Amino acid sequence: MTARTFSPGSYLPQWLRHYQKAWLAGDLTAGLIVTVMLIPQSLAYALLAGLPPEVGLYASILPIIAYALLGSSMTLAVGPVAVASLMTASALQPFAAAGTVEYTALAVQLSLLSGVMLLAFGALRLGFLAYFLSHPVISGFITGSAVVIAVGQLKHVLGVRAPSGSTWDTLVGLVHALPQTNFVTLTLGLGSLVFLVVARRYLARWLTAVGVSAKTADILSKLAPMAAVMVSTAVVALLRLDISAKVSVVGVVPQGLPQLGLALPEPGVVGQLWLPALLISLVGFVESVSVAQSLALKRQQRIAPNKELLGLGAANVASALSGGYPVTGGFARSVVNFAAGANTPLAGVFSAGLMAVVIAFMTGAFYYLPHAVLAATIIVAVVSLVDFETLKEALHYDRADALSLIATALGVVTMGVEVGILMGVALSLGVLVWRSSRPHIAVVGRVPGTEHYRNVERHAVETVPGLLALRVDESLFFANATVLEDRIEDLIRADTAVRRVLLVCSAVNQIDTTALGVLTELNKSLAKRGIALELAEVKGPVMDRLQHTALGRALQGRVHQSVHAAFSQG
Amino acid sequence: MTARTFSPGSYLPQWLRHYQKAWLAGDLTAGLIVTVMLIPQSLAYALLAGLPPEVGLYASILPIIAYALLGSSMTLAVGPVAVASLMTASALQPFAAAGTVEYTALAVQLSLLSGVMLLAFGALRLGFLAYFLSHPVISGFITGSAVVIAVGQLKHVLGVRAPSGSTWDTLVGLVHALPQTNFVTLTLGLGSLVFLVVARRYLARWLTAVGVSAKTADILSKLAPMAAVMVSTAVVALLRLDISAKVSVVGVVPQGLPQLGLALPEPGVVGQLWLPALLISLVGFVESVSVAQSLALKRQQRIAPNKELLGLGAANVASALSGGYPVTGGFARSVVNFAAGANTPLAGVFSAGLMAVVIAFMTGAFYYLPHAVLAATIIVAVVSLVDFETLKEALHYDRADALSLIATALGVVTMGVEVGILMGVALSLGVLVWRSSRPHIAVVGRVPGTEHYRNVERHAVETVPGLLALRVDESLFFANATVLEDRIEDLIRADTAVRRVLLVCSAVNQIDTTALGVLTELNKSLAKRGIALELAEVKGPVMDRLQHTALGRALQGRVHQSVHAAFSQG
Repeated sequence: MTARTFSPGSYLPQWLRHYQKAWLAGDLTAGLIVTVMLIPQSLAYALLAGLPPEVGLYASILPIIAYALLGSSMTLAVGPVAVASLMTASALQPFAAAGTVEYTALAVQLSLLSGVMLLAFGALRLGFLAYFLSHPVISGFITGSAVVIAVGQLKHVLGVRAPSGSTWDTLVGLVHALPQTNFVTLTLGLGSLVFLVVARRYLARWLTAVGVSAKTADILSKLAPMAAVMVSTAVVALLRLDISAKVSVVGVVPQGLPQLGLALPEPGVVGQLWLPALLISLVGFVESVSVAQSLALKRQQRIAPNKELLGLGAANVASALSGGYPVTGGFARSVVNFAAGANTPLAGVFSAGLMAVVIAFMTGAFYYLPHAVLAATIIVAVVSLVDFETLKEALHYDRADALSLIATALGVVTMGVEVGILMGVALSLGVLVWRSSRPHIAVVGRVPGTEHYRNVERHAVETVPGLLALRVDESLFFANATVLEDRIEDLIRADTAVRRVLLVCSAVNQIDTTALGVLTELNKSLAKRGIALELAEVKGPVMDRLQHTALGRALQGRVHQSVHAAFSQG
Repeated sequence: MTARTFSPGSYLPQWLRHYQKAWLAGDLTAGLIVTVMLIPQSLAYALLAGLPPEVGLYASILPIIAYALLGSSMTLAVGPVAVASLMTASALQPFAAAGTVEYTALAVQLSLLSGVMLLAFGALRLGFLAYFLSHPVISGFITGSAVVIAVGQLKHVLGVRAPSGSTWDTLVGLVHALPQTNFVTLTLGLGSLVFLVVARRYLARWLTAVGVSAKTADILSKLAPMAAVMVSTAVVALLRLDISAKVSVVGVVPQGLPQLGLALPEPGVVGQLWLPALLISLVGFVESVSVAQSLALKRQQRIAPNKELLGLGAANVASALSGGYPVTGGFARSVVNFAAGANTPLAGVFSAGLMAVVIAFMTGAFYYLPHAVLAATIIVAVVSLVDFETLKEALHYDRADALSLIATALGVVTMGVEVGILMGVALSLGVLVWRSSRPHIAVVGRVPGTEHYRNVERHAVETVPGLLALRVDESLFFANATVLEDRIEDLIRADTAVRRVLLVCSAVNQIDTTALGVLTELNKSLAKRGIALELAEVKGPVMDRLQHTALGRALQGRVHQSVHAAFSQG
């Protein structure tokens, strides 16, 4: 009998149990740099989500720690991100006015629902759910969202009030509001935009030109938003532009760590929010995993999708617990975290600690931060998400994929994020079914003098009169069973001498109930016409199932080990 | 130069151009027998749809003729059917009260929308849309609908008023209304039920016992509903039970042929009805095609799905044109039509002519027909649609399919036909993606002394150190590309000696944009580790596309004709 002693260490994540001193420097540096990016981003994305600034800050502490304990990526930076913030705003708009207490409460519950869903998916090992979204659909969704987000931020840059709603309504509202433009605000906003664009495009090059290493230059250029925030805040504070020029500023951000607490949502709220929560969960998961995966591969590490579900689920529950809103893995911050030398999630934990210090003592520093500058950082961040590359590639390579991409992007822009993503999923699946419904079916014959059997249309092969041998290069299921049946019937009508129909099942990995039914009927119908249905090269698992069915019993003695055996017979 | 003269005959359907005298007797007999079935059915299904009885009759004339001109089945009997009637009622309930003029107008427009959709699908050759529904989902849907329909008819059998709504509400309403039971109505209803059940189960057997041929006996037993209608109508008329016992009867049915006319729906109506119209179209199409297909196969005929779309589309537009409601191919009537000897759609045209005579001169005969008897015919008809066989088979053969079936049936019963069928489609596709996301991937080696390469786990084969050869038995696309990548990474970690990764693409019929992206990244990432990605047995069409991509160019010189060529190299 082996005694199993309790060891608290075994509940800690592997990176923590085997932590090496050599990793510490990289983790601390990366944690610091990510925090400098995270502060303006969490304030900006809260603005985008229609939430008070502190909600963005709250979402940047506990979620990171929760992910560090359960997630599988060493470098993913979890927290508020642009697309999830837009989806939050879109989900809550029908139920409460942005900025109200109810609105914030709903955002917290949206995060809780999303977290619980992700945890459940992880526990049920439903990582495959991510595969419902094809890459073109995701690309179209992100591009469409970027347009919606950028257009939505223009009012902050202009310093006007404009209704939120569809992208078109927003644009019309902006045009009507143009005469009310606050030119001081516009100057701050445009100035930041120009600075951020220039910094993004040229700063790294200039820094390397003056001798900074390429890597450091790259990281420094990512800190431009913080510089814009600091300079603009100082300018507004010194000139009291918030009063003299009515520049809209962040204002009072409550100081102090978030209070922990969890209000379970009412059934009615669950009914309203489950679909948006599901979509946020799915999109967030897919985005996170793809970022985490691409970073992990560069260091020969692996991402476990089901662990990611648990990590992101815990992060969202932790966000809800501390008054935050839906979070996921962010692209830009993760890349910087990786480049700045993060070795383990300790970088994130350190960053969370710094954020806690900021919230506990320094929220006063944000008072004079102009909304226009936050909007400028959002616009520059999301415009870089617009992805023409995938569209170009898809147009060139696969029209159906290009169409899905364009339709999803247009759907998001004209009908909103939720309808857009649902349209995208429907299109992905539609294309999948359409493709699967056209399986490759080849009539095969024998390569003379060998035991090889090949497509009669491509090779000079021998056939046996009366024997029709078909190779199906796909599993048989509801979307293509009837197509196979039609094909067989057409071939039999074309060649009335056929007495044996041989299905070569070397590429058939599954036969679902629908296809089983079709084959059963086909066998009966062929038998009436004096034609025998035969199978060859049926895979083990397929045969195991088949032999207990009526079709399996009917086909006894007519299932051949190889095509050659079938050809040699009779 | 060949002169193309105008020939009106070429626009006629083939069966009509080549009509043979020998077919006439069968067509006339079948047409007559189907009419005798059609009269009570069209009245009953109009009742089920919440429509006045004449709407059911109108839907039984022009649609049949329109289908005869464009459809591809020789024996499909088009007209009002149970499931489409239930779906019509469910679609219109939110917008108008059953029995009102607006309700009927909406039913006509639903038929028009459905017809236009089917015509458009046919013109676009979208017959593959039918494949979105797997057999278990259809079975679950029909079974669930049968339960909903049967429960909904109980109030007519009891002669009480009960609210329509969810199945549960209906049952509760029935229990509350029990004290108001009209016992004369109940006697008529129960009597008909017993008669119809006995007739369905034993009549054919008794008739053959007294010397009637099996086929004739079978057809005669299908005419039992007409007998029930005639006898009960006579009883009510003679005893004036409609007045003395307040038995609910059909009452006045307007006499005269339907007026032709077409009111185009308002945009608002289109917005409300497009989804139900789409679902009715899809379900109707799938049902029709499967009935038509199974009958056609018995006579070595073929069904052309895209022609069926046109035929059913024209039938629905014709229905709308003549004041009818959504129609499709009915199961029971088609089987009787076939068995009674119908050779061509002329049987249907004859039946339509007889229906026109009935409507023009004989609607007075329906005045005393009790609703309870119509309800009894509906109940007996739909109970036979409950399909435990498919469930049993699926439970035994494939759990995922069985779950889809049960979920769809429960969805229909608890949440209504529309949610139910959408759930079913989502489940079908979910199962499809789930299966596709687990492609069969085998590491292969050489069967000693041959050029055959087989799964290393199943055969004693030779491998080459440093060469990892993988055969993927499925097309590569968004749902499984990452799975392949994960598998390769796992295998490389397990065997650090690997220097070449060979993908055997003999079963890969397509590589979509997502999979192309994954392979492109994989190639780069492997290259960094000094590992070469190679391909073998790439199919022609796949290679054609691949060679113009970045991946294709990167892989130049590493795409082998055969696995053997790859193994022989290096």
